[in-house]
Amino acid sequence: MNAKTATTQHQLKTPYLLFLGCGQDVRAVKTSRGIYQWNPDVCLGEISGGPNPISIGLPKLSAKQASEKGAKTFILGLANAGGYVDPEWVPYIIEAIECGMDIASGLHRRLDEIPEIKNAAQKHGVTLHDVRHGYTDLKTGTGKKRSGKRILAVGTDCSVGKMYTTLAIAREMQAQGFNADFRATGQTGVMIAGSGICIDAVVADFISGGIEELCPDNDPDHWDVIEGQGSLFNPAFAGVSLGLMHGSQPDIIIMCLEAGHDHIKGLPHIPAPDLEDCINLNLKCASLTNPQVKLGGISLNCRIISPQEGEKKRAELAEKFGVPCFDPMVTGVQSFVDTLA
Amino acid sequence: MNAKTATTQHQLKTPYLLFLGCGQDVRAVKTSRGIYQWNPDVCLGEISGGPNPISIGLPKLSAKQASEKGAKTFILGLANAGGYVDPEWVPYIIEAIECGMDIASGLHRRLDEIPEIKNAAQKHGVTLHDVRHGYTDLKTGTGKKRSGKRILAVGTDCSVGKMYTTLAIAREMQAQGFNADFRATGQTGVMIAGSGICIDAVVADFISGGIEELCPDNDPDHWDVIEGQGSLFNPAFAGVSLGLMHGSQPDIIIMCLEAGHDHIKGLPHIPAPDLEDCINLNLKCASLTNPQVKLGGISLNCRIISPQEGEKKRAELAEKFGVPCFDPMVTGVQSFVDTLA
Repeated sequence: MNAKTATTQHQLKTPYLLFLGCGQDVRAVKTSRGIYQWNPDVCLGEISGGPNPISIGLPKLSAKQASEKGAKTFILGLANAGGYVDPEWVPYIIEAIECGMDIASGLHRRLDEIPEIKNAAQKHGVTLHDVRHGYTDLKTGTGKKRSGKRILAVGTDCSVGKMYTTLAIAREMQAQGFNADFRATGQTGVMIAGSGICIDAVVADFISGGIEELCPDNDPDHWDVIEGQGSLFNPAFAGVSLGLMHGSQPDIIIMCLEAGHDHIKGLPHIPAPDLEDCINLNLKCASLTNPQVKLGGISLNCRIISPQEGEKKRAELAEKFGVPCFDPMVTGVQSFVDTLA
Repeated sequence: MNAKTATTQHQLKTPYLLFLGCGQDVRAVKTSRGIYQWNPDVCLGEISGGPNPISIGLPKLSAKQASEKGAKTFILGLANAGGYVDPEWVPYIIEAIECGMDIASGLHRRLDEIPEIKNAAQKHGVTLHDVRHGYTDLKTGTGKKRSGKRILAVGTDCSVGKMYTTLAIAREMQAQGFNADFRATGQTGVMIAGSGICIDAVVADFISGGIEELCPDNDPDHWDVIEGQGSLFNPAFAGVSLGLMHGSQPDIIIMCLEAGHDHIKGLPHIPAPDLEDCINLNLKCASLTNPQVKLGGISLNCRIISPQEGEKKRAELAEKFGVPCFDPMVTGVQSFVDTLA
């Protein structure tokens, strides 16, 4: 049998066995923590190695034990500097392959660059899901109006809480009985949802076309809740953000930001945008593929300010922009979802 | 010897032998015509096949004859629907390889997908330049200010004359004694210039970073004249256009448009943008990485309107926007270049 290669969208089989690596740094396994937090039902167990194996609180299972319990995909739920497959991890990956599990990785380097992994996958007929690779059959965008409704998270910057916000909104909408789906556009999101497109990893020509495929025509009452990426004001990634926006043709944008930052993360020479300016540019650009787009809410990540400051700031922004302002981790997102009814 | 693979930028060795294929459609060889028009000094000859071989007016040379005259690269200076290597072309490519020439292709499909070509290239130690592939070592953008000055062509749409405009400006600047270089961002441009980056073919994360590398720090009096791609108002490719703009950090943008179009090419449901709106959005977005950016001129492609209409329209736009308005094919670009002195 040949190893199957993913084409347009990766479709990860569940349930998962989460691999936490052989280190002690809990920050390195935030992908695993995200998967467990947002989709605990698909997490059968965890596996880690090294002298003091770390844990995120799942049952500790060997590949064989997990496989016997039905695990279908071994998730490399961790990151390292350089984004490569650490040689220490290879025996764990091989064992999972030998137990018949697919392997999913969000690393920059491909799993099949390691001949041992490639050969084992071929031998056992399992799929290697490099979720940052393999988007080879996308089409260019058309900007044509599609049926169904769409919410897109946009931001003043990267890493301000766009994924968390959309996951929280999709969950709240589902809880309230809306016909809604989270649509993943980054590697952690793809692993949480089990499908999606890492949009910053596609060839540039296909950014908007890839997103059109991610959230196609749907029922008139269906909502896609689309994970955003980057920011129109981040000079490294704004192209991704704009193509993602055009492909999403959002009816509603949620502006996400983190309080307490005066410059773009990692780029101290680029000031953080004025919020009103940022909202206006996003609405202007989004209107190309959906002239009816409007701002639906502001998601304010208050992680680094005091609870009192956060509450005051949220009230100020809600007043100024006339939409709910919430911190998904503090207030939840019901104030926004209630406006959709 | 192994076939060498290009990494960050393709560097094509000159002079060229231009391959025109085996068909009769002169529109299919517009890449060759562009190379011959803009860089005739590097075009040693042409080669074509089939029952009625077409010509663009260069000396007809076999691969062997061209090689003896010093040809270093065999250029697939043509396009076909699907962007694949036509089996009819393979014997010509193999013969060129056997004569020691590198091969350059702007097709969507890679040359090394054809085992015969891949093997011959390995055997003879020549490079296969798939100029739409191979950009594997790019970094993400930083938006940091670089020395030297930059002009970028932007547009209301694709295919309105941005490459032609920038080639004409670079040539006029050089003629007037400016320290200026054309910087190619598309396949024809790369073949004309002999180097560059097909920016719509890079992974989305690296659009602006790729352009930062294309036009790095330079002498204070040096001008990069950067080929634009797409349009902020084309929903298929706007992400590419925005990343290209941020990476270029232009001091001056030239707005390119084609008179007589009321919608985006190929997308009849997307109206052509209002010109003032388009200029303003481009200036707004460009200001992120160069707050001093300004509009330097308007390049009006008057191909499908009458000469009288063209003249009137150019005068109107020059008056309205306070910058030179020119049609590079009709008036030349001196009116703009004169403003730089």
